[in-house]
Amino acid sequence: MGKAITSRHEDYSQWYNDLVLKSELADYSAVRGCMIIKPYGFALWENMRDALDKMFKDTGHVNAYFPLFVPKSLFEAEEKNAEGFAKECAVVTHYRLKSDPEKKGKLIVDEDAKLEEELVVRPTSEAIIWNSYKNWIQSYRNLPILINQWANVVRWEMRTRLFLRTAEFLWQEGHTAHATRDEAIAETKQMLDVYASFVENFMAVPVIKGIKTPNERFAGAEDTYCIEALMQDGKALQAGTSHFLGQNFAKAFDVKFSDKNNKLDYVWATSWGVSTRLIGALIMAHSDDDGLILPPKIAPLQVVIVPIYKSDEQKQQIAEKVTDIINNLKQLNVRVKYDDNDLTRPGWKFAEYEMKGVPVRIAIGPKDLENNVAEVARRDTKEKQSISLENISIAIFNLLADIQLNMFNKAKNFLDEHITEVNTWDEFIDVLENKTGFVSAHWDGTSETEEKIKELTKATIRCIPSNAKIEEGVCVLTGKPSAQRVLFAKAY
Amino acid sequence: MGKAITSRHEDYSQWYNDLVLKSELADYSAVRGCMIIKPYGFALWENMRDALDKMFKDTGHVNAYFPLFVPKSLFEAEEKNAEGFAKECAVVTHYRLKSDPEKKGKLIVDEDAKLEEELVVRPTSEAIIWNSYKNWIQSYRNLPILINQWANVVRWEMRTRLFLRTAEFLWQEGHTAHATRDEAIAETKQMLDVYASFVENFMAVPVIKGIKTPNERFAGAEDTYCIEALMQDGKALQAGTSHFLGQNFAKAFDVKFSDKNNKLDYVWATSWGVSTRLIGALIMAHSDDDGLILPPKIAPLQVVIVPIYKSDEQKQQIAEKVTDIINNLKQLNVRVKYDDNDLTRPGWKFAEYEMKGVPVRIAIGPKDLENNVAEVARRDTKEKQSISLENISIAIFNLLADIQLNMFNKAKNFLDEHITEVNTWDEFIDVLENKTGFVSAHWDGTSETEEKIKELTKATIRCIPSNAKIEEGVCVLTGKPSAQRVLFAKAY
Repeated sequence: MGKAITSRHEDYSQWYNDLVLKSELADYSAVRGCMIIKPYGFALWENMRDALDKMFKDTGHVNAYFPLFVPKSLFEAEEKNAEGFAKECAVVTHYRLKSDPEKKGKLIVDEDAKLEEELVVRPTSEAIIWNSYKNWIQSYRNLPILINQWANVVRWEMRTRLFLRTAEFLWQEGHTAHATRDEAIAETKQMLDVYASFVENFMAVPVIKGIKTPNERFAGAEDTYCIEALMQDGKALQAGTSHFLGQNFAKAFDVKFSDKNNKLDYVWATSWGVSTRLIGALIMAHSDDDGLILPPKIAPLQVVIVPIYKSDEQKQQIAEKVTDIINNLKQLNVRVKYDDNDLTRPGWKFAEYEMKGVPVRIAIGPKDLENNVAEVARRDTKEKQSISLENISIAIFNLLADIQLNMFNKAKNFLDEHITEVNTWDEFIDVLENKTGFVSAHWDGTSETEEKIKELTKATIRCIPSNAKIEEGVCVLTGKPSAQRVLFAKAY
Repeated sequence: MGKAITSRHEDYSQWYNDLVLKSELADYSAVRGCMIIKPYGFALWENMRDALDKMFKDTGHVNAYFPLFVPKSLFEAEEKNAEGFAKECAVVTHYRLKSDPEKKGKLIVDEDAKLEEELVVRPTSEAIIWNSYKNWIQSYRNLPILINQWANVVRWEMRTRLFLRTAEFLWQEGHTAHATRDEAIAETKQMLDVYASFVENFMAVPVIKGIKTPNERFAGAEDTYCIEALMQDGKALQAGTSHFLGQNFAKAFDVKFSDKNNKLDYVWATSWGVSTRLIGALIMAHSDDDGLILPPKIAPLQVVIVPIYKSDEQKQQIAEKVTDIINNLKQLNVRVKYDDNDLTRPGWKFAEYEMKGVPVRIAIGPKDLENNVAEVARRDTKEKQSISLENISIAIFNLLADIQLNMFNKAKNFLDEHITEVNTWDEFIDVLENKTGFVSAHWDGTSETEEKIKELTKATIRCIPSNAKIEEGVCVLTGKPSAQRVLFAKAY
């Protein structure tokens, strides 16, 4: 594996970058701010995507595909949304290149091929989609529309990080249309629950569900619901958002429907999305100085078997024994690989699969064969145990479930320990600076105070938690009255 | 369903457009030349994609994702490739919009945010990928690289058709790197075989495998292998291509590897792709004046069950009987829907599912219940039969296989009947104009003759078929000597 990565203690940010590159999840590209998702990273994304896609379909959604480009006149129709994204838009202005008359073999933009109207590369698809829904919706019979799209989007960011913040990223965006406000709000909440369930049950990352303050809302939404996760460095990360869009887009694109009584009204909307950013959250929630730690449910490879041998005969004996184990594991739908590559030594392989976060490693040598056992190492706790080859498949199958659970519990304990109630400004600063994590504090409900706190501490209101109890108190900064606590944190 | 579509006889082209819209596969969008793939069309694409993806993985390929944008300096590096695509490139020149100072609520391109180097929206990804492979390949140990990407690409076309030719389309592009010429050629041929197998076995569309003439080659390739299909109007359609790229891209991007003897050489490359254009081929190969005819293996819905009832009691009785049938079909992995919607009458439903090409329709009324049978209609031949409800699931399962086979056989007969050997120019013109289809003729091997024939007849050389026998003859236009026949046709 060559040299190790920077430790978290030494430089958390460098640890993250080293890890992404060294585990071969992603690589930098020649395009500013755009990354390459390498095969190992993409296999991880495919597992995440497939699990989510099934959850979307199980809740009645269907997939579709809308254009990459949004004509500027459509893009600007919903003014708040347009304003929110205008500064991050990649813009196509021409549709042809031509030979550079002055430099042989080079190309220049053909000024004769200037578009009459510029095209925005979608930063999000509400505009292009609602412009289509206009043609698809006439009556309540056409509702609801429950469409999801898996797509690439582009937001021109000045400071980028692999997975966490890239100019182009992959995501899914749900765009639904409803006859009533209540139905749209129910959909918004349902999809937040789907996200929370996915992130907790598949990624083993516990989340806090809540609602954003007006300052942090999606541009064009009436309400933004979110799930917030906590990274090992004590910073929060927004893991998914679900927006109740009210009638804003229906009004901007004039999408009306006639109800059962033939009365015309604007359609109600939601949108919701998660992206490859989730991979960044996954890495930072679980991994250690030896590399990734991946939850079994979405790990591209769940089990690796490494033979330890000195002769071809030994190798052959191990291979024979292992064949059955592999077949049994595959019958249990376990993703297993037998690495009998002669080019690298076992120690090197161990380090490599630790770096890649493979949940379980099985090593088998001649002595193990004699004793009819194998050495089984779990990646999460690094514990090793000797397991009898009789029924080893079932043991591994159960071990994978145990690892999944243990990873969630460990992260959940960390999260629970890092939600700290404070009642004074000094405590607020102290927890934020020293203990880190979420700070649960009273806030007076104004944008001014929210911004002032951000300016003073870099902490933002991550959410008003769904489970917050109504409780009288005074704002931690201004001393003005407050009815409930909100969660502050420094965030990615 | 409202009014029917234009008949093929009346206007083939209009029939196609009507059908795509009416069956709800796709819709026009607000972006010139870009289409919306609607949920029904996308479900079809998902089935095609999943089947292909499995075939790619079974042949050792992995998926990855590379940036949407290609910096102009990289794009122009492989000159022939750049020249081939320059006229179709959408170009991003700016990365920000700003408020229009003269029109409130409107946006304009921010001229202060002009990119130093323009970005081409990928028309194909060889350039951005080989620029990355440069960093990934040092020695033969890093080879082969067998990567596939599912992505959107943009080629600015002046005349567009839904699915067949759109400015943005979805596709997969394989990009492989090899240590030897032979290995790369074997890969190129293997992937052509994969495509042929997919199109014939899943889409039920027979194809001719062959190789393109230099005129028709992919820009930047040494050889382009292709599969060609025949549409019902006698025009050919290129259904997939697999390119042997030689060392062209390795040289353009300076990608060398050291072999086992530590000797440096340029890497050998292939690329291969199929796109949503295949859906156009699928439609035109099978469908009729009543709508789509979809092969069961990829049909989003394979069986629809329509109850015929006059009272709620009858509806209830049918529903009870049908529950078991549906469960049994689902256990056989049959995609089935029970349409007991009260808002539309059975006749309307029949027409709708015919339009959507659902392979099998089952109708059950009170009389059927009495006799313990159902009326089963197959979409391909329109034949109806009464089938006993005992074991109807197995009967339907077998019927789906029969439909798949029958659709292929019908299309195969049509293809075989439309490959016509001609030996004179008069025959050539006559077959092309009256019989249509592929014309198998001798050609003198020059680009001049090829172009002259295209100019005179609009027919192009679709391919030099892989199975062509060596046979002396004279060129159908020039009378010059020729060693084998090639296939001409008018094409999409």
